[in-house]
Amino acid sequence: MDEPAYLEDLAAGQTFTNGPVELTAASIRAFAGEFDPQPFHLDEVAAEASLFRGLAASGWHTAALTMRLLVTGGPRLAWGYVGAGSEVSWPRPARAGDLLTLHGEIIGITPSRSRPDRGIVLVHCETRNQHGEVVQDMVARVLVPRRAGPPGDP
Amino acid sequence: MDEPAYLEDLAAGQTFTNGPVELTAASIRAFAGEFDPQPFHLDEVAAEASLFRGLAASGWHTAALTMRLLVTGGPRLAWGYVGAGSEVSWPRPARAGDLLTLHGEIIGITPSRSRPDRGIVLVHCETRNQHGEVVQDMVARVLVPRRAGPPGDP
Repeated sequence: MDEPAYLEDLAAGQTFTNGPVELTAASIRAFAGEFDPQPFHLDEVAAEASLFRGLAASGWHTAALTMRLLVTGGPRLAWGYVGAGSEVSWPRPARAGDLLTLHGEIIGITPSRSRPDRGIVLVHCETRNQHGEVVQDMVARVLVPRRAGPPGDP
Repeated sequence: MDEPAYLEDLAAGQTFTNGPVELTAASIRAFAGEFDPQPFHLDEVAAEASLFRGLAASGWHTAALTMRLLVTGGPRLAWGYVGAGSEVSWPRPARAGDLLTLHGEIIGITPSRSRPDRGIVLVHCETRNQHGEVVQDMVARVLVPRRAGPPGDP
């Protein structure tokens, strides 16, 4: 669709994909240095001796890259991607050299009871590596405006 | 405590704080340019006209800064902060110039049933601005090793 979507334009079951984006060792170290300074995100040798057995990206780095894939490749929304919150899990590490692809699906659409101009859209986002393995599983709650208020509204 | 903690060393109710860290307009734009390229995170004028009514940080930027405060100011853990996942919500925007402080509390400790060498610690993390308002509310699930397996283990 070309026009940005309102709540009424979306449907559960709608899917999309975007990517891949490469997760480089340099970007893993740079993100970790700024936001998650732990040895297994910063140093290959220390990472080999860690639980991860090799350099692994911060989960928040994977989340941030997933957001880029969502914003640039998900359905266009009238307010953009305004997140109310997310549930996120990292079932396995994302590693240097991984090619990450987003597989998204709208799984819920709920008009707000208290705010008739908006609703919450649940977007299930799997971030998969080049082997098809899920490195991040997320359900994002996104605020989306309604095209019109309920009957009787101005 | 000086020695890194194992599961047995932690207790629900244990609290900690860290910060503040300043959220600058330049850092908001830089993070957004790389990971969340939407006008209300990139441009003051566009942000004024948006739902946010002013430049707002990407929620993932707030999450990443919170991780820095957790890693550098939370209890030292034997494996470091290895996250299995998180539930995160952003009840209000974090804005340019905000001073963010982490208020953390351990709220749950659960030995793994399937892996006797570890457990999951639930850490409730409120990220508050300089007015004491919560800009991010998170419960992180962190993998923490047990000091010893159950009775009978080698």
